Amino acid sequence: MSSQFGKLFRISLYGESHGNSVGCIIEGLPPGFKVDLGFVHSRLDQRKPDSSGLTTSRNETDEYEVLSGLYDGKTTGTPLSVRFANKDQRSSDYRESDMVFRPGHADYTGFIKYNGANDPRGGGHFSGRLTAPIVFAGAIAEQILISKGIEVVSQLLSVGALQGKTLEEMNEATVRLIDGLKFAIHPDYSERFLEEIRKTGARGDSIGGVVETVITGVKPGIGEPFFDSLESTLAHGLFSIPGVKGVSFGAGFGLSRMNGSVANDRFLKNSKGTVITATNRSGGINGGISNGMPIKFDCAVKPTPSIAMAQETLDFGTMENSMLSIKGRHDPCVALRAVHVVRAVAAMVICDQIFISRGVNGSD
Amino acid sequence: MSSQFGKLFRISLYGESHGNSVGCIIEGLPPGFKVDLGFVHSRLDQRKPDSSGLTTSRNETDEYEVLSGLYDGKTTGTPLSVRFANKDQRSSDYRESDMVFRPGHADYTGFIKYNGANDPRGGGHFSGRLTAPIVFAGAIAEQILISKGIEVVSQLLSVGALQGKTLEEMNEATVRLIDGLKFAIHPDYSERFLEEIRKTGARGDSIGGVVETVITGVKPGIGEPFFDSLESTLAHGLFSIPGVKGVSFGAGFGLSRMNGSVANDRFLKNSKGTVITATNRSGGINGGISNGMPIKFDCAVKPTPSIAMAQETLDFGTMENSMLSIKGRHDPCVALRAVHVVRAVAAMVICDQIFISRGVNGSD
Amino acid sequence: MSSQFGKLFRISLYGESHGNSVGCIIEGLPPGFKVDLGFVHSRLDQRKPDSSGLTTSRNETDEYEVLSGLYDGKTTGTPLSVRFANKDQRSSDYRESDMVFRPGHADYTGFIKYNGANDPRGGGHFSGRLTAPIVFAGAIAEQILISKGIEVVSQLLSVGALQGKTLEEMNEATVRLIDGLKFAIHPDYSERFLEEIRKTGARGDSIGGVVETVITGVKPGIGEPFFDSLESTLAHGLFSIPGVKGVSFGAGFGLSRMNGSVANDRFLKNSKGTVITATNRSGGINGGISNGMPIKFDCAVKPTPSIAMAQETLDFGTMENSMLSIKGRHDPCVALRAVHVVRAVAAMVICDQIFISRGVNGSD
Amino acid sequence: MSSQFGKLFRISLYGESHGNSVGCIIEGLPPGFKVDLGFVHSRLDQRKPDSSGLTTSRNETDEYEVLSGLYDGKTTGTPLSVRFANKDQRSSDYRESDMVFRPGHADYTGFIKYNGANDPRGGGHFSGRLTAPIVFAGAIAEQILISKGIEVVSQLLSVGALQGKTLEEMNEATVRLIDGLKFAIHPDYSERFLEEIRKTGARGDSIGGVVETVITGVKPGIGEPFFDSLESTLAHGLFSIPGVKGVSFGAGFGLSRMNGSVANDRFLKNSKGTVITATNRSGGINGGISNGMPIKFDCAVKPTPSIAMAQETLDFGTMENSMLSIKGRHDPCVALRAVHVVRAVAAMVICDQIFISRGVNGSD
Repeated sequence: MSSQFGKLFRISLYGESHGNSVGCIIEGLPPGFKVDLGFVHSRLDQRKPDSSGLTTSRNETDEYEVLSGLYDGKTTGTPLSVRFANKDQRSSDYRESDMVFRPGHADYTGFIKYNGANDPRGGGHFSGRLTAPIVFAGAIAEQILISKGIEVVSQLLSVGALQGKTLEEMNEATVRLIDGLKFAIHPDYSERFLEEIRKTGARGDSIGGVVETVITGVKPGIGEPFFDSLESTLAHGLFSIPGVKGVSFGAGFGLSRMNGSVANDRFLKNSKGTVITATNRSGGINGGISNGMPIKFDCAVKPTPSIAMAQETLDFGTMENSMLSIKGRHDPCVALRAVHVVRAVAAMVICDQIFISRGVNGSD
Repeated sequence: MSSQFGKLFRISLYGESHGNSVGCIIEGLPPGFKVDLGFVHSRLDQRKPDSSGLTTSRNETDEYEVLSGLYDGKTTGTPLSVRFANKDQRSSDYRESDMVFRPGHADYTGFIKYNGANDPRGGGHFSGRLTAPIVFAGAIAEQILISKGIEVVSQLLSVGALQGKTLEEMNEATVRLIDGLKFAIHPDYSERFLEEIRKTGARGDSIGGVVETVITGVKPGIGEPFFDSLESTLAHGLFSIPGVKGVSFGAGFGLSRMNGSVANDRFLKNSKGTVITATNRSGGINGGISNGMPIKFDCAVKPTPSIAMAQETLDFGTMENSMLSIKGRHDPCVALRAVHVVRAVAAMVICDQIFISRGVNGSD
Repeated sequence: MSSQFGKLFRISLYGESHGNSVGCIIEGLPPGFKVDLGFVHSRLDQRKPDSSGLTTSRNETDEYEVLSGLYDGKTTGTPLSVRFANKDQRSSDYRESDMVFRPGHADYTGFIKYNGANDPRGGGHFSGRLTAPIVFAGAIAEQILISKGIEVVSQLLSVGALQGKTLEEMNEATVRLIDGLKFAIHPDYSERFLEEIRKTGARGDSIGGVVETVITGVKPGIGEPFFDSLESTLAHGLFSIPGVKGVSFGAGFGLSRMNGSVANDRFLKNSKGTVITATNRSGGINGGISNGMPIKFDCAVKPTPSIAMAQETLDFGTMENSMLSIKGRHDPCVALRAVHVVRAVAAMVICDQIFISRGVNGSD
Repeated sequence: MSSQFGKLFRISLYGESHGNSVGCIIEGLPPGFKVDLGFVHSRLDQRKPDSSGLTTSRNETDEYEVLSGLYDGKTTGTPLSVRFANKDQRSSDYRESDMVFRPGHADYTGFIKYNGANDPRGGGHFSGRLTAPIVFAGAIAEQILISKGIEVVSQLLSVGALQGKTLEEMNEATVRLIDGLKFAIHPDYSERFLEEIRKTGARGDSIGGVVETVITGVKPGIGEPFFDSLESTLAHGLFSIPGVKGVSFGAGFGLSRMNGSVANDRFLKNSKGTVITATNRSGGINGGISNGMPIKFDCAVKPTPSIAMAQETLDFGTMENSMLSIKGRHDPCVALRAVHVVRAVAAMVICDQIFISRGVNGSD
């Protein structure tokens, strides 16, 4: 158990890939906030599988029902519940009848944890399908942030060995363009990245990637050390996203190879008299608290474990070795869609942290 | 505010570097557990600054008082409170009188967050001094884990560009040896690492490093997805440690460059009939739940921001540029001591997760 | 915000009286637990309005959909989500168009808290309709408790000035009979109670009552002082039930008039060698922890604020005095139905406390 | 385990009666708040035992050390830790050597819960001594409330059968007078009450009482339904206070005997145009949310279980019946001192709820 995340802005998540539905309850929405459902739709569309061959072919409409918490297009201040009914339940593609657990998946660990009682169809509760309600919740959080001048942008920074430019290296127009893309990659090398993914998928394999996120407009002073630092709470949420195996802030693991004289971000004031830092190796966070610079982090996303290529594994029924070829079409690079989930989680965390800070300190 | 961490095994932390004391309350200790204070001492000694020139020269005895929760050498089941009185309060070494905030430190963000009311002496609440009670709590958690056959070992994997061997590459005797060292580095290259640190410190600079941790003996089935996955809860705690800027599990960021056919850990059974995986790129965690293999993660630790070399910064009183040379002796490589804090945090998280799992599922 | 209750066994609640639906997510259900939905139905039926004239005439079927968490009739161990679609939405009976707030209701406080954005129809989020999912969750908790030999029984102890017998004064067969009744009143005076309610309703008024609960079979040692004592956690949940304005344990307010020599429950052992107390003025709880005796508490339920009789109030639009006659048929004695909600909340709390105790202490 | 209470304004409590010390950590204090320690002292003095013969004769100075979180007399915004060292540890008065558990005490339940490992001396963690840090924390919360125009007053409303006047029946000067008294009783009958207590103590017995509390100045809109209603959160805290066995709001159990036409508080506006209610039977709370009227509740406090009179009990070592005469001097009426603890808990809850509301809604 723990399908809940956040302290004041809080999400409770439920669902299984091939059960009745997936959805969530969102608490802590300020009352009377006008929700732009068009914006929410556009965010959901970015995450949704499509027929490009670059994503799973699951035929989901991502239609949802708001069950509570919205009245006259505005948040009521009481819990907002949303439900995504599952339509495409082609269970036959999935190995529900046997015990040949998929390597790299939660089949085995879920079986052990839940004493074999968990819903095994399509990954059950561990399915990427659960990221739809997360993106929904994140899209509302994002709107709250936008109303405060805060923007969250995520992109696919690398695919396998192919490395792109960081958001900090791009101009604002490009960043804005990428923010609206389904495949959030710089146009200069987007086709190269996608071709790599396509080719990998075509040979029955999958590939990993890195998602980069930059959050601008967060005032200094947000974050709740000792234990609820910005890094701690962001990482907590980000590591919940299926496939994320690494999270780093600012220069990240690169900092481990630096000297302090290089790593330290020098303070100065800009032409408007605002405090900035000359570099941003700390990713906008000092001592777990925002310093006013862009908050920047990277997420390492592992390759989709579902691959068509034959793999050796164990038949847990007979405890004999067994070969497995996973049928169905799966995301050859789950990082491609994880981009939109990462942004959603980040938006929720920043919202929550702002509310907590405002609650204790009394300023906004 | 949030000086609390954990759900059933829980720590509440307080203190400032140069205030009266630092300490914590530990909740969720099973009643009647015999605490080996000798073991606790040895863990505290590992973290403690010394006169090697490799750590800050703060002259702390790390003596503590147990204020509650221990009776006849055993846990009472009620909160255990421990206090480390601050003795060495050479405030004069620290820049408390002025507003020339140190780059890379929480001076500025703390000042903003707490409206200038936080204790500025020696970093205040952001001081590494607060890791003493964390190590204390971790040492008790570790003993609980040991009683269940679980071991947590951390080492300094790299210093700057110098790269060591992973714990998985070493034999058990070496791992055990490293576990007891103050400078937890493989003896083959320990002197090289320490020399690099010494030289860096000598020229008034500091250097980063990577701390590697391996936890063995955790049964499959521990971890609480969706949001309290093992990765999420471990990362939450680890990112609270001052200086940690990256956390990755298993092959970590390397997974982002792999294909699924390589990244997937193949299941097989060993000679005893136990399920294992042929490789451990997932770091012992699938779907946020332990799979019975060693849990493995890396923490990127940035170089200590306190350096003797002159740095440019801003005088926040006058808002003019200013030069700063930080006096006092500081850890040239805080990763060296962070090793012991990382292990402590990891032990607490695993303890908590086992208790939660046992609470809901009813098995141990 | 706080639509969530419980630590390990946890419910998240949503919905509005006349919105799309009401429902909840239940977390912390042990995996593989076979749920008897017939039992759940019978509990829902007890709470449901009917045509007796003794309850609101809202025509709800209390049909529900399980959206997740049940597979093959057993809990999966992942969140169970349930939804009750609202069918009877005769909003015209309700004063949604104007600002003549009903005395004793949350109309005014909800309007202020939610800046006028909350759903005003039928009480919105404050509606008794939200107790349907609570009873659903409680009925599952009850089954978990029954599997451990624990039983929770609630009855209507008094209506207005009419006082019944306590459960402790009845024999087991009568207690069991009352447990299955819609109107959970001792048969000897049930007709008298119901006649009083009927007459009160007929003259356009309503009446209060006291709900008594007894929980048997709880082993000694459950409860988490200092702050999560059994009394604290039970009261927390009970005071969430609309209309509950007082909660007392054992002899309750009567204890304030006693001497210690009378109030103290003397320990003795029964014929089986089990520790019991000669009296049970403490309601089975000492120091916030169960002592093995029946846990006993009373809830004071205020009269339904919705009454047909004309009442003076304020028109918050014009800020002028105004007369109000509430249309529609409302429960003349909401305590009658609250009985089943009280039992549900009690079952959830005991479940949660047992799980927490088991998590920390490792025994069941 | 659960020695923690509150969400944003949070206390973590520790200690045993005859251990090293008792104390707490307070989180969520707004930074830069000037704490009037004189006020804190006066509150601690009210709670402290004295030589009047009306309280336990425990010779505690209630001296404390602030270990962190105060700097230059102001809150730092980081955790405030306070410690009360135990000085009077006359363990010999207490039955630590044997297993003759005291009726009405937590001796038995604590022994079972903690597997016999809890500190048995003087009640251990269940001691009234732990209310000293609660009063400390409450006195700071009270100051924060006072700065917002909110006042919390508690009094001893009744002792045994002797009934006093409610605070609502008194004029403001009398209320203010009572607020400062050690024995918070109306002067008209204070001597009668105290005489009753004295006589009861003299014959080796104890007596119960009711503590009434009124909180004025809370704006409408505070409280977090569904589950964190004002009643729920206040009751949660109040039932943690040793001896409290009943909590009721407004007319409380009296409401169970009323008709709705009487119980409903009619809205009107006063001469200043402010919304008030003609009566206050709801105790200032509708739907779990403050309505702007005084928040009023009563706590039933049981008679001190420690009495000098001989009592029958069980020797849990031999499992034979045994006689027990409790030595030492104990509070003949613990309600007398509970007054000050009730006020402290109430102040903390209101503080926390205001912070949460401000965090989500953004207004103060």
